[in-house]
Amino acid sequence: MSEPSRQVAFTDPSRRLLVAIDAGGTSTRSVLVEPSGRCVGYGRAGSGNPTAVGLDAAAASVATAVAAALDTAGVGPDRVDSVLIAMAGARTNSPIAAITAALAQVGVDVPLQIEGDLLAVYFSGTHQPTGCAMVAGTGAAAIRVEDGRQVGSADGLGWLLGDDGSGFWIGHRVVHAALADLDRRGPATALTAPVLRRLDLDIDEVETREDLVLEALRRLYAAKPVHLASFAPLAFEATADPVAQAILEEAGDALSYTLAAVAMPALDGPVVLGGSILAHHPELAPRVVARLDHVPQVRIVGDGLTGAATLALRHAAVTVDEVVHATIRDSLAPWLPATSG
Amino acid sequence: MSEPSRQVAFTDPSRRLLVAIDAGGTSTRSVLVEPSGRCVGYGRAGSGNPTAVGLDAAAASVATAVAAALDTAGVGPDRVDSVLIAMAGARTNSPIAAITAALAQVGVDVPLQIEGDLLAVYFSGTHQPTGCAMVAGTGAAAIRVEDGRQVGSADGLGWLLGDDGSGFWIGHRVVHAALADLDRRGPATALTAPVLRRLDLDIDEVETREDLVLEALRRLYAAKPVHLASFAPLAFEATADPVAQAILEEAGDALSYTLAAVAMPALDGPVVLGGSILAHHPELAPRVVARLDHVPQVRIVGDGLTGAATLALRHAAVTVDEVVHATIRDSLAPWLPATSG
Repeated sequence: MSEPSRQVAFTDPSRRLLVAIDAGGTSTRSVLVEPSGRCVGYGRAGSGNPTAVGLDAAAASVATAVAAALDTAGVGPDRVDSVLIAMAGARTNSPIAAITAALAQVGVDVPLQIEGDLLAVYFSGTHQPTGCAMVAGTGAAAIRVEDGRQVGSADGLGWLLGDDGSGFWIGHRVVHAALADLDRRGPATALTAPVLRRLDLDIDEVETREDLVLEALRRLYAAKPVHLASFAPLAFEATADPVAQAILEEAGDALSYTLAAVAMPALDGPVVLGGSILAHHPELAPRVVARLDHVPQVRIVGDGLTGAATLALRHAAVTVDEVVHATIRDSLAPWLPATSG
Repeated sequence: MSEPSRQVAFTDPSRRLLVAIDAGGTSTRSVLVEPSGRCVGYGRAGSGNPTAVGLDAAAASVATAVAAALDTAGVGPDRVDSVLIAMAGARTNSPIAAITAALAQVGVDVPLQIEGDLLAVYFSGTHQPTGCAMVAGTGAAAIRVEDGRQVGSADGLGWLLGDDGSGFWIGHRVVHAALADLDRRGPATALTAPVLRRLDLDIDEVETREDLVLEALRRLYAAKPVHLASFAPLAFEATADPVAQAILEEAGDALSYTLAAVAMPALDGPVVLGGSILAHHPELAPRVVARLDHVPQVRIVGDGLTGAATLALRHAAVTVDEVVHATIRDSLAPWLPATSG
């Protein structure tokens, strides 16, 4: 019974709907988009990152978000022409089979395309097919985009060996500075008190600084290293503290080297900045672009879903110009949290 | 049958023998020492670090090393008056019960004392009861010693949050610099080729730098983070490379802050430097002591066993003066590898 309507959907362009998904570590968001760029449905679910929650849970999140998007639009899965999913590690892991199976269970049985999350961030900020994107959230990486495709990348090497200037990088240095202060190896810093508060440690309840350091270490080593990223906001809050400000200046410098690695020898097009650190702290932007050969057009985005929708349209051979891109942004806006970009 | 001879051993000072043990992550060494300081037996076994190999295996190593020391001296366990063991984490973990039980199994059933490994390093370099010790091996820490006891410490906070200037710290930066070079984010460095060689990666066998970085990451993240310490020697080998030299200068600076944290406001007595990084690279010493208020007497030691023997004698109320300390060192020398100190 549904096969005939599928055929109609394929042959009648006015009925085509595309699904775009931004599968992130915190949440998975899905949007239903018309070829005009108008977004007509939106759904949200839990983490869609296979590394974070496992392949099955990530695939289930994707299917839940897509089903919710169809629900808000009041249309059936037979209206869907194709699915594009933007996710981290798309180039190294290929979870296509698991996600295809999960989508089939909610009735969506069409070709699936996967693109990198950084490319989605890039196209959230611009319709132009050539430029660079830099993302600093828990991790940090930059890509170079030419003709709509990722042609180069830098960093994104993970918390232990890279992600320089990322939320992990900043949070790690915040905690390190607080411990060095307690240990009398480093300068006194306004970061120490809030770090101890976040660890539920009361400096007055512990007999010696040595005991305080030992108890802090016990709590810090009990958590996964990546949890240190949660201390990054403390650096931004300590606006008058020289130790915190030095950490943020070094973070900006580290990010500038990563961006320059993909933007050099010559940058053509805009620079899109995204990820929680850059989206919430646009004041870092001038330092991040300082190493480029000219001051570029900078767009700051809080979201990769606009870019996922743009990529879905591009994969469907729809030309996304400035007008279509604005249509995506404007029609998505009611569903998205306000951002600085 | 053995009880009467035990009584004789306790009451006849000329027959007293003390056991001293240096339980390290790589090996456990035990020495049998007379009150004169003369070492008459030596034994060696595997790792004696409970964190590294588990409590049971560590306790078994200790018992094996002690039995071997008794064996080389040709004496029975009934001659042993007391046992002193120097080990990391002695203040936070107390593996006394497991080690006491393992020693009883080889016939050694006498009081057991535990001291910190850093205090043993300190007393390997001097008989003076007041001074400081700084150890940089895989980790890094400093202690202040007064009246023969550790009265303060700095760092030793582990690879994730401290150990600044340690072997891990250096090795981590070596690998980071090589990856940043491959990633074009950082300067070209002579460290890159040997890092890739250690990872069994051939730069000519991989199509792109991006593939090379991905494969290097795969191998690096497959190992425990602490394994990065094994890359530290590359920094010392790259004597003409500015990136490597900057890493070593920063390591020396980091160690100097840790030492200053325990030596300030005023250092009285010698500074003993130990651990594989400082024992093998005495050229770091001037930078490590540079932040002190005066140039101290510096002793570099390759070993904590002399100090463990010194501590065993001190616990037995034997006064360890310069002559006794020299007796320990001289009689131990034939058993120990040659060191720079």
